[in-house]
Amino acid sequence: MTTSLRYATRMASIKASDIRELLKVTEQPEMISFAGGLPAPELFPLQRIEKIAARVIREQGMQALQYSTTEGYTPLREKIARRMNGKFGVSMTAANILITGGSQQGLDLTGKLFLDEGDVVLCESPTYLGAIQAFTTYRPKFVEVQTDEFGMDPDHLRKLLQTVPKIKLIYVVPDFQNPTGRCWSLERREQLVRLADEFGVAVVEDHPYGDLRFESDPVPTVLSLDREGRVIHLGTFSKTFCPGYRIGWVAGEQEVITKYVLLKQATDLQTSTVVQRELDLYLNEYDLDKDIEGIVDVYRKRRDVMIETLREEMPEEVRFSKPAGGLFAWVQLPDHLNARDLLERSLKQMVAFVPGGSCFPNGGHENTMRLNFSNMDEARIREGVRRLGQVIREALAVGAGRL
Amino acid sequence: MTTSLRYATRMASIKASDIRELLKVTEQPEMISFAGGLPAPELFPLQRIEKIAARVIREQGMQALQYSTTEGYTPLREKIARRMNGKFGVSMTAANILITGGSQQGLDLTGKLFLDEGDVVLCESPTYLGAIQAFTTYRPKFVEVQTDEFGMDPDHLRKLLQTVPKIKLIYVVPDFQNPTGRCWSLERREQLVRLADEFGVAVVEDHPYGDLRFESDPVPTVLSLDREGRVIHLGTFSKTFCPGYRIGWVAGEQEVITKYVLLKQATDLQTSTVVQRELDLYLNEYDLDKDIEGIVDVYRKRRDVMIETLREEMPEEVRFSKPAGGLFAWVQLPDHLNARDLLERSLKQMVAFVPGGSCFPNGGHENTMRLNFSNMDEARIREGVRRLGQVIREALAVGAGRL
Repeated sequence: MTTSLRYATRMASIKASDIRELLKVTEQPEMISFAGGLPAPELFPLQRIEKIAARVIREQGMQALQYSTTEGYTPLREKIARRMNGKFGVSMTAANILITGGSQQGLDLTGKLFLDEGDVVLCESPTYLGAIQAFTTYRPKFVEVQTDEFGMDPDHLRKLLQTVPKIKLIYVVPDFQNPTGRCWSLERREQLVRLADEFGVAVVEDHPYGDLRFESDPVPTVLSLDREGRVIHLGTFSKTFCPGYRIGWVAGEQEVITKYVLLKQATDLQTSTVVQRELDLYLNEYDLDKDIEGIVDVYRKRRDVMIETLREEMPEEVRFSKPAGGLFAWVQLPDHLNARDLLERSLKQMVAFVPGGSCFPNGGHENTMRLNFSNMDEARIREGVRRLGQVIREALAVGAGRL
Repeated sequence: MTTSLRYATRMASIKASDIRELLKVTEQPEMISFAGGLPAPELFPLQRIEKIAARVIREQGMQALQYSTTEGYTPLREKIARRMNGKFGVSMTAANILITGGSQQGLDLTGKLFLDEGDVVLCESPTYLGAIQAFTTYRPKFVEVQTDEFGMDPDHLRKLLQTVPKIKLIYVVPDFQNPTGRCWSLERREQLVRLADEFGVAVVEDHPYGDLRFESDPVPTVLSLDREGRVIHLGTFSKTFCPGYRIGWVAGEQEVITKYVLLKQATDLQTSTVVQRELDLYLNEYDLDKDIEGIVDVYRKRRDVMIETLREEMPEEVRFSKPAGGLFAWVQLPDHLNARDLLERSLKQMVAFVPGGSCFPNGGHENTMRLNFSNMDEARIREGVRRLGQVIREALAVGAGRL
């Protein structure tokens, strides 16, 4: 039976992704998937979490299973504030932190808080697909800022800030960006903050991968450089602990967080009390930074294997960079190749990836690919990249006309 | 430091509730609180949940802690569909169910899916405060339908459907409504569905309390009466299992659910995998309906004590009804009394409640009160109502002029 319900206008711009349909096959166990952004589940500290989960119910069950405050569990918010103070040199308290259902909810609430229809979001080119989806609900225009290996081009950013009306947000993923793996230089971060201050625009720093650094020293976060309370920082435990908990946070000026709390309350009242208390107890009992070191060791090796195999297996015309952290490598094919077509061929060889075109909010760049290296073991990474190289070589041999 | 960020226009209508500020004191343990809609935590099956929580990590930890599909955990969706089929005489499968972060998220996604600025939501008068908050984000107008003890007045509803432009949704809580405790008659439900069909408007049936029936037989849900796929049904385990899990669902035509899934994906990717799997295992291992019988027995007694004490302690001018289920009793004071003023006095006597005026989206009706009876034991209910009677009698003695 077909319903004849009338939806909101925004639904015209919200479509099912054809890529996501294609990628449904990645659930097959024999598939070598470079597609998702999934952490390695074999690194989840299962025995510890089993103990913690039981203890939370045993020791604080009546509170853990009850409604709680929208802001989140205060001891957890305090711990997050202390971690941020230690790592980023900021001075946060629980009042600066709202617990969210993953950092994706932080993006949705950000759209709700800032965006009217027709407002402009400045973003890197390419940018995180999930942010495009979250913001699109609020019907902004995306204007892509020219971006090189060091971050946004400050001259282009300035020019856009001077000429484009109704800019509400600058959205950035400065550490090991999804999809490119790029890490911004300190200089570019400073320039971003200066320009945001000059033009009075909010900056959203999405920071899921900052802890997953494989080499050299951390660069200060954009939040660390903020002097005017203009930066909103989105954090998550999905990549450093586990994503199945769905715990992220928004950090910022208390006045701004108060507004996020109002929206969160109307949106889902609060994030699950029980998982918040489990995470809090875990942080009490164990050393998360030590866990992260273990994760980083594994991912570094996987990154190395992927890059090494790309060097061996990819035709000369294919470019890629070596990310210094995070989960993703970014591949640029010759202009005339289309990664969406390649994906169909590649899936027949049981290898999946995300065509990079979907990470450009205004389209184009169909000759790019995002490859995840965190979720497959080294042997499968080697084999998958080998097959992918074969698919690309065949496509190049056939020539552009056939694609 | 004060930020000078520019927020979305919608933020003008999203304000912190002064009532919520007042009620922050209800966290004091000596407070007798009739204010929240909290279940009785002493009824949470703690020992079972402790076992279940540990087992899920032990037996399926790598899946339970990983990302999962936006739709929700399929076995849980299947169980929910089967429960609904058995209770409501509908024919649902997992494809008709989206797992949400409590039914509050179902309300938010409903607003996202249907509401443009200026669209109209028809609702009961009064209606659920959380629905007002969720929908307000999308800037609709609320038009209150005249409502008596049997449900919406069908003549008034028809008149509004004929005359008010841009009606997108009819929002109802037919079983033991929050705030009034009212249960709609079958006839009124049938009339609602007929009118919705005639005028082609979607109906949202919010159904958190339907399982908490204290006497007589269930009335078919509005969903059960739907023949044209026009009803969206919101369910939750918050009142029958525990709210700290934050698990609710949206049920409806597959075509509509597909749209909800797109929005949920952009909003927070998915609800926590681990709590979904815990709930699923609980439903495998234990008889939730048996648990619910136990909850109903306790709440029925508490309802009885509250109504009995209201009869004993309230001045004659005060009216209240005896709800046949749910969590709330509704009190109407003489017109010249203002429940917000009474709340301030009552809090000094360590008794809290929700002034009913906040449940009317267009204001007025400040002489009403919502009293929760599920969260306090019988002795405290008796004592709280006694003190409340005293406060009201004093207010009446002082006379309208002083209020």
